[in-house]
Amino acid sequence: MTLLGVDIGTTGCKAAVVSPEGAPLATAYREYPLITPRSGWAQLDPDEVWDAVCSAIREVTSADVTQPRAMAVSCLGEAVTPIDNRGRPLGPSIVSFDRRAAACHDRLVERVGRDTIERITGLAPMPHYSVAKWSWLASEAPDTYRAAAKLVCYGDLVAARLGLEPVIDHTMATRTLALDQSSHRWDPDVLEAAGVEEAKLPVPAPPGTVIGTIGGQHCLDLGLAPRAALVAGGLDQACAAHAVGVDRGSALLSLGTVAVLAVVLAGGRPRPIEVPTGPHVVEGRSLAVAGAPAGGAVLRWYRDALGAADAERAETAGTDFYDTIVSAAAAVETEAIVVPHFAGSRVAFADPDSLGVMAGLTFDTDRRHLVRALLEGVALETAVMAERLAAAIDPVASLRAAGGGSRSAPWMQIFADILGVPVESAASSYAAAVGAALIAGSAVEAVQGEATMPMAARFEPDEARADGYRAKLVIYRRLYETMAAVRRAAPEDGPGSTGSTGSAGSG
Amino acid sequence: MTLLGVDIGTTGCKAAVVSPEGAPLATAYREYPLITPRSGWAQLDPDEVWDAVCSAIREVTSADVTQPRAMAVSCLGEAVTPIDNRGRPLGPSIVSFDRRAAACHDRLVERVGRDTIERITGLAPMPHYSVAKWSWLASEAPDTYRAAAKLVCYGDLVAARLGLEPVIDHTMATRTLALDQSSHRWDPDVLEAAGVEEAKLPVPAPPGTVIGTIGGQHCLDLGLAPRAALVAGGLDQACAAHAVGVDRGSALLSLGTVAVLAVVLAGGRPRPIEVPTGPHVVEGRSLAVAGAPAGGAVLRWYRDALGAADAERAETAGTDFYDTIVSAAAAVETEAIVVPHFAGSRVAFADPDSLGVMAGLTFDTDRRHLVRALLEGVALETAVMAERLAAAIDPVASLRAAGGGSRSAPWMQIFADILGVPVESAASSYAAAVGAALIAGSAVEAVQGEATMPMAARFEPDEARADGYRAKLVIYRRLYETMAAVRRAAPEDGPGSTGSTGSAGSG
Repeated sequence: MTLLGVDIGTTGCKAAVVSPEGAPLATAYREYPLITPRSGWAQLDPDEVWDAVCSAIREVTSADVTQPRAMAVSCLGEAVTPIDNRGRPLGPSIVSFDRRAAACHDRLVERVGRDTIERITGLAPMPHYSVAKWSWLASEAPDTYRAAAKLVCYGDLVAARLGLEPVIDHTMATRTLALDQSSHRWDPDVLEAAGVEEAKLPVPAPPGTVIGTIGGQHCLDLGLAPRAALVAGGLDQACAAHAVGVDRGSALLSLGTVAVLAVVLAGGRPRPIEVPTGPHVVEGRSLAVAGAPAGGAVLRWYRDALGAADAERAETAGTDFYDTIVSAAAAVETEAIVVPHFAGSRVAFADPDSLGVMAGLTFDTDRRHLVRALLEGVALETAVMAERLAAAIDPVASLRAAGGGSRSAPWMQIFADILGVPVESAASSYAAAVGAALIAGSAVEAVQGEATMPMAARFEPDEARADGYRAKLVIYRRLYETMAAVRRAAPEDGPGSTGSTGSAGSG
Repeated sequence: MTLLGVDIGTTGCKAAVVSPEGAPLATAYREYPLITPRSGWAQLDPDEVWDAVCSAIREVTSADVTQPRAMAVSCLGEAVTPIDNRGRPLGPSIVSFDRRAAACHDRLVERVGRDTIERITGLAPMPHYSVAKWSWLASEAPDTYRAAAKLVCYGDLVAARLGLEPVIDHTMATRTLALDQSSHRWDPDVLEAAGVEEAKLPVPAPPGTVIGTIGGQHCLDLGLAPRAALVAGGLDQACAAHAVGVDRGSALLSLGTVAVLAVVLAGGRPRPIEVPTGPHVVEGRSLAVAGAPAGGAVLRWYRDALGAADAERAETAGTDFYDTIVSAAAAVETEAIVVPHFAGSRVAFADPDSLGVMAGLTFDTDRRHLVRALLEGVALETAVMAERLAAAIDPVASLRAAGGGSRSAPWMQIFADILGVPVESAASSYAAAVGAALIAGSAVEAVQGEATMPMAARFEPDEARADGYRAKLVIYRRLYETMAAVRRAAPEDGPGSTGSTGSAGSG
């Protein structure tokens, strides 16, 4: 008996066939392009995503494994797709950081009131949540809105594609900013203010709900066991946390494009307002998710902006680019400090306008030192998030790492040294998919107790290094604060302005 | 009738045959390696330099030009070479930023007193001035010192090599930190404290002094007119200022490895202590020289550390690397600000420990933006130096630019916009050599009045851009100040420390 987990992300999807004990038996990955048709817009082609999902599933089920008996989906949050009543997309999927719906969000907040939304949904209103996108479709694309049977996120889209009811699990439904956190139903006042009919929305259900039995033809096509069950999964970070067995005292360190720290709360505990908190995929638990836009994305920036020589070296040596630069960086020390706010700071400093800084540079600073400082900078930002979690909930006593970055032993050691806690890293980068598979397995009673995926390595903090990093963290924080002060004190007609002869107050 | 100017620098020498009107008729350049036999040491092989000088001279005199009737040498400051009584080197040339003589300098300052040295020499004592190197030879290399007939700088070395008296001009002699600024003689107290005999030193003379007639064989070898005159030249920055006709209100912008602003003072004016000031190559005038380690060196750092992709693009296109990156940078604007203190700050902030910063970075920042910010950063540092000059002497009303960087039109426009003054750039990068040739020409009465080399281009400040840059300069200064505050407030056991278990006070 095996289980299937699918993890749908912003730039690619993963599929994993998983044993009931949590071991990934076969894995596959497919990429798809993020489409930016105009400034501020970001979308996916849902047909392309579906093709990639099917292709990844076929690859893992055609491996020498038992056919999965149940599947569930782990999802990127907040992506919205209009579909017809046969599950076919009527337009692109508007992803999380698409900004087209900002005005709709503002109007919604004005109509309902910020405090009321916070009380209803448990979240501080932000323009990326799905309800603003629904509202945008209703007001700015009324034909599409009218034609749509449902406005779905990716878990519900998969259900619809498989001919089943488009059910949205509570972890995903919360991230629409339209779910009443007490009743777990759509809030009529929010919907009315957004100009959206409840009939257009999928039915909310707890993660682990059996949505239905997948039709025979689909099972045949995808290599699933006959009459396999589709189970409601959850938000990707929640699935990953579930897979690596995050519990009291330990936190998930998810190191993908963004860096995330997530901790589990007992259901009855008050939720901290400083850290976005929603239902967990485990019943009776909540998950507080602290994110930083500075994760693996900083290394991708480095690669595209500055890493040509390293790329060439890696290609010549036939090695992975990221392994190459991280190995080189691990061999040096540096006084350079990077504040990796290349896309602002979220939970750590709650400052979306903060900008990146590379400080402490000398003529001896080379690429290895810059990469080292980038790796350390992400961990320093995470250390500040850990302090926020400690103040609001509990100290983080250990980390369980997942995501692409967790495969890098030098980076994991830097996290252990900077956060001053042991780090265990997952044996594969398919944690979210494994988590979804385990949810499916529990629903069909194939998984007993608290199965987790195997951990591969453990990194203990080095006390001598930790001392040095404590000092660096003091400077990091001061560097952010002084840069923020410089920004706030900047003349109105600041840098980057081409200037206008009418501008005053500068100089 | 033509004149020959030779410019001896740290990594190469230039020769120019010049018309009495200041037009370079033929130019040549030769490189030589800077040798760093151990950490902190930096030296040249004087035989290699001499061969390069002769080779460059032969190239320009073999061009289709009239044989030069007089020559003079423009020199790097503070380089010291021991020679025998036939002008042959007895050891390497110890260059300006060699640090081996630091302890000898400290001992000298202790013995004579800082204030006394300042009063005698007109300069604040610094370990790179030649007297410390003489002292080092006397105490640490006594055999070489005893064997040496003279300890010379490069102008005097050329004289000795040509079989003439090794005369050192006042601009170079001042930079030994042993010349009495009133009498223009070696100060006996300083020499005694340094442990150096006056007999070992060349005779000081004003720039423009005819040292002698060059021997027939040498004239034949080098392609000089028979009985050509060797004339005492001067410090490179002074020769360059002379060549481009810097006078009251205008300043030299010399943009080589370092960036220099230099202004001329009437001899009777009090010298500012904030800006190193010595005799000019023009009688009755002084030259205040404000330098920044951040000149073209920041582009070389960029090339070596980060510029591999640009280097490849330039090679493919068959274009010059620096032209390529500057053109690309000129086509963009950026919010990024670089404080280019990769080797500290000299006159601008008088802070040798300051470190480089790249601030205002986003995921959209690419190499073009970084290069633009580097170019602007050098000009912003220069703008702060211009304010120091304005406070101590006179406002800078216009710039006359020389040095390799002055050939870059986009960079010159950035200087015009940021300093808010017109910039004229020299038609060739041989300003110092041309200045030496003009000094030689005046001495033999071939040059009448105030000849200067032709200027090639003029850049007027763009008012709209200047507004934006005024705002950026405010941020630049604040950025430096806040970074300095971060550094001063840093824990003792700061970044870069590998940490020690006994360290306290961090965290």
